[in-house]
Amino acid sequence: MKLYNSNFSSSAKRARICAAELGIKLELVNLDMGKGENRTAEYLAKNPMGKICTLEDEGFVLWESPAILVYLASKTPEKALLPTDPPGLANAMRWMFWNASHLEVAANSAARERIIKPQFYNQPSDQKLLEIAEKEWARYAPVLNAQLEGKSFVLGERFSIVDIALGCTVEHAQRGGLDLQAYPHLRTWLERLAARDAWKNA
Amino acid sequence: MKLYNSNFSSSAKRARICAAELGIKLELVNLDMGKGENRTAEYLAKNPMGKICTLEDEGFVLWESPAILVYLASKTPEKALLPTDPPGLANAMRWMFWNASHLEVAANSAARERIIKPQFYNQPSDQKLLEIAEKEWARYAPVLNAQLEGKSFVLGERFSIVDIALGCTVEHAQRGGLDLQAYPHLRTWLERLAARDAWKNA
Repeated sequence: MKLYNSNFSSSAKRARICAAELGIKLELVNLDMGKGENRTAEYLAKNPMGKICTLEDEGFVLWESPAILVYLASKTPEKALLPTDPPGLANAMRWMFWNASHLEVAANSAARERIIKPQFYNQPSDQKLLEIAEKEWARYAPVLNAQLEGKSFVLGERFSIVDIALGCTVEHAQRGGLDLQAYPHLRTWLERLAARDAWKNA
Repeated sequence: MKLYNSNFSSSAKRARICAAELGIKLELVNLDMGKGENRTAEYLAKNPMGKICTLEDEGFVLWESPAILVYLASKTPEKALLPTDPPGLANAMRWMFWNASHLEVAANSAARERIIKPQFYNQPSDQKLLEIAEKEWARYAPVLNAQLEGKSFVLGERFSIVDIALGCTVEHAQRGGLDLQAYPHLRTWLERLAARDAWKNA
């Protein structure tokens, strides 16, 4: 299995962690965004938006990192990283869609304004967009903090792909300067994730 | 099965359409957001963000409408509205996560600025946020338009929950004044969806 990868991409990190957790060996194809390697005709034929990452498995080409996690977990059901009963699967999808629609929007915006624009494009941060990101973070981070109270992982005592998807978002939020100080359960959970071999090696 | 519903919510519309497609009878509990019925302690105990909609099925409480679609489809596998093989499931999830992360962010922002703020909160539209929404729409709508070329539905010839999730987003985008003129395959597909009984009656 091939992963079109960048070590700067938190989406690609999700795929690398998930593969490591499942014992799947990925062939990494590193793309240098600075050199436009994600904008070549060859790559755009695989991923029409030129986003990183993309998975390729015997001709099946897949992007959107939460879908890649679903694919890897579904191919390896014996590892049980994704519940398969209807309420269990839907509960996992609840948190992953909640993240995509809410928490990650704030994290991506903060990271874009505070890091990507100034450091990669020599553009100023937009204060208004940062204020919106801070406000959304303050609305949604407490929901995850409350969910994690008294639990080891988002779904309970069992680690799942939900932790991979949401954990990488929270790391990205931290890079974007969003504060975790007020969210003790979130911080403890993130430390628990960061201590896993798959996380350390990704 | 109970759905905490509002006829103004495109998320609740997804759940209503999906239930109708599957032949599931929903008991609708209409919440009046203007009266704050989505902010009562009782409702917040089910849905900590006070968002509409929420599904309740024999004590199992679920929110995030794409997850509700996954739940309803998984409970009714004989209707085959969601592929279950790993590539099929992951492909469906690719489009639903793509929508949540990209297309829907633009649609929600446009609807918020052009309709919700002026009509419900007597606030002016924010021109800069509208410009960002227009730009994101122009980036992502062509991806869906291209995917629909030569297909009846997003995944191919078979209708699925992906059409329900994305179709309601595109309707919401239209309400927010985002233009479909440049996207003929998207318009044909939306007409095809709107002609279905479940869609008309939702």
